[in-house]
Amino acid sequence: MTYCVAASVTDGLVFASDSRTHAGVDQIATYSKMHRFGVEGERQLVLLSAGNLATTQAVLAHLRRDIEEGAGVSLLTTGGMGETADYLGGVSHSHQTKHAEGATAEFDPHVTWILGGQIGSDPPGLKLIYPQGNHIDTSEGTPYFQIGEAKFGKPVLDRVLSHDDSLADAAKCTLVSMEYTMRANVTVGPPIELLVYRAGTLVEGVHLSFAEGDAYLTSMGSSWTEGLRQTFRELPPVPLPLDSA
Amino acid sequence: MTYCVAASVTDGLVFASDSRTHAGVDQIATYSKMHRFGVEGERQLVLLSAGNLATTQAVLAHLRRDIEEGAGVSLLTTGGMGETADYLGGVSHSHQTKHAEGATAEFDPHVTWILGGQIGSDPPGLKLIYPQGNHIDTSEGTPYFQIGEAKFGKPVLDRVLSHDDSLADAAKCTLVSMEYTMRANVTVGPPIELLVYRAGTLVEGVHLSFAEGDAYLTSMGSSWTEGLRQTFRELPPVPLPLDSA
Repeated sequence: MTYCVAASVTDGLVFASDSRTHAGVDQIATYSKMHRFGVEGERQLVLLSAGNLATTQAVLAHLRRDIEEGAGVSLLTTGGMGETADYLGGVSHSHQTKHAEGATAEFDPHVTWILGGQIGSDPPGLKLIYPQGNHIDTSEGTPYFQIGEAKFGKPVLDRVLSHDDSLADAAKCTLVSMEYTMRANVTVGPPIELLVYRAGTLVEGVHLSFAEGDAYLTSMGSSWTEGLRQTFRELPPVPLPLDSA
Repeated sequence: MTYCVAASVTDGLVFASDSRTHAGVDQIATYSKMHRFGVEGERQLVLLSAGNLATTQAVLAHLRRDIEEGAGVSLLTTGGMGETADYLGGVSHSHQTKHAEGATAEFDPHVTWILGGQIGSDPPGLKLIYPQGNHIDTSEGTPYFQIGEAKFGKPVLDRVLSHDDSLADAAKCTLVSMEYTMRANVTVGPPIELLVYRAGTLVEGVHLSFAEGDAYLTSMGSSWTEGLRQTFRELPPVPLPLDSA
């Protein structure tokens, strides 16, 4: 499994991804799920992927080949984020279709993507691209996307993240959501990658990688747990009859 | 969908369940998922159910018929919690099997149960009963069970609940977990039922029902959100280079 989350705030974009892949509990491996493409000063794109690893790699190879061969449409030539999402969705769908007839309960060729970035003078954008190749945008009310093992880390995003947050707060919030998920589900694991892109810069942004046992993540996790327990203690007691509690 | 959670602590047992059922978004209904059986001074049993509503009702009718007809084995005659779980598991499995050949992607006859209670001088017990009819117990490390839409409300249980908690704290914790889940998933909804059973009493315990917009749940939810935000603000900032945040 996988957990990736990305947020769109006023000042830019934040991306976070885990690195664990597995095909059964005895086939655990580490692969980055964050893929960066761009030309400084012109465009910056970040792709996060969740789903079948073979499809993911085939799609990434296709995207890179289109760039290298100077294809008419590639991640470096698309006219905007919408067109970029359409192109990625089409490539992704075509590679899934190749293996669709082999699909079983154990084999699912699907991949879901988060695409974010900025092209030229357009504003930054964040897209969720479904296995079928179509896509949706974030909104002010829902400024984030999650793919993979999304449920554990969703409540904290809903309660804490807002479109007006600073990049630093958005980065912290995606890491809290990631830490929640890692703790709840063994198929989500480190290293955790974080990328912070400031709107208008058209440079790659700040990329951090948090390894297993990283001091910041560990301290954040235990501060969070302590804060949660403190909050819990201060909640009003359930209105139970006195002799029952 | 459904969310039910039960906790086993030193002083007794706590059960919480939502009441929403749906077969498609336009077939939403309200059914209690908490079912109580017992004889004061002899035994008290609570069943929580998640899964197919028709199977659930068939099983409950079967359990009640066995009691009424004075069957050799019923919820009022079993010799202990393990035997009770075996009996319930067997009845549940037999009703699912009747409809198994009609199972499709849209129709799943399965039901999962949480069974808790106390029989005579035995200690209280909590069991999770799988659709296959087999069951597991809680442990000191994992003093709770969840059925249905479990992921949203799991992190708070893992971080806050422990076997040593008071009944009042365990009740509060299951309600926080329920409130998390309701907020994240529209297929989980009020009224929320809560039952608190104090070990050794062999009486029904305290049963509360929280309707839509209930003042306690609303106040608890907003206090929790405020506490989470406060905790978030106090977390150490992500170690980003200064000019990026």
